Amino acid sequence: MTDIAMIHAARDRMGNHAVRTPLLSSPFLDEIAGRRLFVKAECLQQTGSFKFRGAWSAISALDKEARHKGVIAFSSGNHAQGVALAARMHGIPAVIVMPSNAPRIKIDNTRAYGADVVLYDRATQNRDEIAQHYVSDRGLTLVRPFDDPQVIAGQGTVGLEIAEQARDMGIAVAEVLVPCGGGGLSSGVALALEAVAPGFTVRTVEPEGFDDTARSLVSGRIEHNAGMTGSICDAVLSPSPGEITLPVMQRLCGSGLIVSDDEAMQAMALAFLRLKIVIEPGSAVALAAALFRPEAIAADTLIAIASGGNVDADLFQEALRRFGGSTG
Amino acid sequence: MTDIAMIHAARDRMGNHAVRTPLLSSPFLDEIAGRRLFVKAECLQQTGSFKFRGAWSAISALDKEARHKGVIAFSSGNHAQGVALAARMHGIPAVIVMPSNAPRIKIDNTRAYGADVVLYDRATQNRDEIAQHYVSDRGLTLVRPFDDPQVIAGQGTVGLEIAEQARDMGIAVAEVLVPCGGGGLSSGVALALEAVAPGFTVRTVEPEGFDDTARSLVSGRIEHNAGMTGSICDAVLSPSPGEITLPVMQRLCGSGLIVSDDEAMQAMALAFLRLKIVIEPGSAVALAAALFRPEAIAADTLIAIASGGNVDADLFQEALRRFGGSTG
Repeated sequence: MTDIAMIHAARDRMGNHAVRTPLLSSPFLDEIAGRRLFVKAECLQQTGSFKFRGAWSAISALDKEARHKGVIAFSSGNHAQGVALAARMHGIPAVIVMPSNAPRIKIDNTRAYGADVVLYDRATQNRDEIAQHYVSDRGLTLVRPFDDPQVIAGQGTVGLEIAEQARDMGIAVAEVLVPCGGGGLSSGVALALEAVAPGFTVRTVEPEGFDDTARSLVSGRIEHNAGMTGSICDAVLSPSPGEITLPVMQRLCGSGLIVSDDEAMQAMALAFLRLKIVIEPGSAVALAAALFRPEAIAADTLIAIASGGNVDADLFQEALRRFGGSTG
Repeated sequence: MTDIAMIHAARDRMGNHAVRTPLLSSPFLDEIAGRRLFVKAECLQQTGSFKFRGAWSAISALDKEARHKGVIAFSSGNHAQGVALAARMHGIPAVIVMPSNAPRIKIDNTRAYGADVVLYDRATQNRDEIAQHYVSDRGLTLVRPFDDPQVIAGQGTVGLEIAEQARDMGIAVAEVLVPCGGGGLSSGVALALEAVAPGFTVRTVEPEGFDDTARSLVSGRIEHNAGMTGSICDAVLSPSPGEITLPVMQRLCGSGLIVSDDEAMQAMALAFLRLKIVIEPGSAVALAAALFRPEAIAADTLIAIASGGNVDADLFQEALRRFGGSTG
C-alpha cells in the first residue's frame, strides 16, 4: 500500500520534470464562496492534468529491465496523455489502447506525445485480451489509471505541494476539495496530508448522477454508476472507486460532495475570469462545490484542486457564452 | 535608478503576497517554435497581470507616514487593478483616476478591489489637474505605471524568478521575450537578468503599428506612436517608452520584435490549447513572436513572458473560434 515514504520518494524521482503548480486565489471568488478559497491549478501540469504525476511515478519506480521494455495503458483521456509523455521523457516505448471511436484529437495528441496508439472496436473486441498480448509478448508493464500504489503515490505529490504552499501562507486548517473519478488523486492527496498537514480534511466531489464514490463512502462498499454517459464531466466518470482507493478514502475523507454539470460550467467561466486558467468540466467540480455548496462545507479555508484543463474549444466557448458575462 | 539590490529588496518586501508564477511548456509549442520554449505565466499573478508586482513594490517602499495617507494612479487597465489591490492589502486608501468612458467592467473591478474610482471626461477635463488636487490636498503619492525606479524594481522580480526557474532546469543561455508598453517590465527583467543570469538576453515585443520601443532602440531617442487606438493589444499601447526605461533597454536589450494582432490572437488560442492559461492580446505578443518569428531569433531556448490575462469573454471566444480548432 501507498504510504508517505512512497509519496516522498515519488516526488524525489519527479524532480523538476513535473510543474510545481501554483495555489491561486481571487478576492472575487472569496466573496462568492463566503470564505478564503485557493485553487491548486493542476491543469497547468504537463499534458494538462495531474495524471502525468502518477504516470511518471509508476514508470520511474520500475526496475531498469522492466522499464526498458516499456509500458501499456488503456485510456481515451488524460491518463493516456500522461503515460505517453512520461514514457517519452524516460526514453521508453508506450502503447496506449484506445477505443476506435475516441475523439480524433485525443488520438492525435496521444500519438504526438510519442505513443504507439492501438485502436480497438468496443463492440467486437476485448480490451483486456489486446493488452494481454502486449504484456505477454513484449513484456510491457500495465500502468493502471488509479488502483496502483505507485500511481497513488505520484498523485499524492499534489498533497505535499498543497501542504507546503499553505504553510507558507500560514494556513493550518482547511478542507481540500478533490474532483473524484476512481479516487487516485483523492486517496493520494489524503495520504499525503494525513502525514504532513493533519489539520487538512479531504472531500471528494463528483457530478450529479455519477456519485459512485459519495455512495460508497456512505455504504462502506464499492458502489457503481448506472452508466458511463450523460455528463460533460468525462474526466471523472469512472464506473466505481477502486479496491485500493476506497478504503483510504473511507478512513480519511469527509462525506462526498455533488454538483451539477451547469455548476461545473459556471466554475469554468469564473476560473477564466478570475484566475486566468482553463479547466475542463470534470476538473471544475471541486471549484464548483467550493463556490456553490457553502452549506455543506465547515472550514473557513478551502483549497479546491483544478485537476485538468483538456477541454475542447467549442465547449469552453459555450461556458463563456452562458456564464462569462453575467458574472463579470 | 533601479539596481539589483532594489530588485532583491522588492522581492523581500513582497514575500508570499505575489504568486511565484510557473514556467510552463508543451512539446507541441516547442515543435512550432522549432526550439525549446517556456512561458512565464504571469497572467496568473494577483489581479491577472504583472502590474501587481510594481504596485506592491512602490507602495511597500513608501515611508510609513506617506503610505498611511494613500496612493493615486491613472489607468483604465491592469495598472489600476494592481494598485487597487496592493493598496487594499496594505490597508491604505487608493484613488484611481479613470476616463468616464472606460469599459464598465474595468471600473467595476477596480472599485471591487477597494479603490475610490474618480471618473473624468477626457474631452473637457485635465487628468493631471485632478491628480494634483489629490496629491496636494490629501497627500496621496502618485504611483506611475512604469517610469519609477521602485515600480521597475517590482517588475524585475519576474526576472529573478525566471533566472531561478531556468537554473533549476539547467538552462544557462536563453532569449527572454517581453511584451512591451512603456518598458517597465522589459527594463526590470533586463536589470535582474544582467545581474543573476548573464547568459540571458531580453527582447521587447510590440504589436504592428505601435512599435515605438523598437524604433526608439534603433534611433537611440524616445520615439512616439502615431495614435493610441487601432490594435486589440490594449495592454501594451503606450505613447512611448519612458525616460528611465529606454536607457536601460538600450543598454541591455536586443532589437525589438513586432507581431500582428492576428498572430497575437493565434498565440492566445495556442496558450489555451497547450498551456491551459488565459492570455490577453497585448500579453500574447511575446508568445506570438516566439512561435512565428523564428528567423528573427538566435537562441536555442526561448522564454516568453505572458504578462496578463484580463481579456473579455467575447474576444477570447473570437480567438478560439478563429484559431482554436485548426491548430488542435
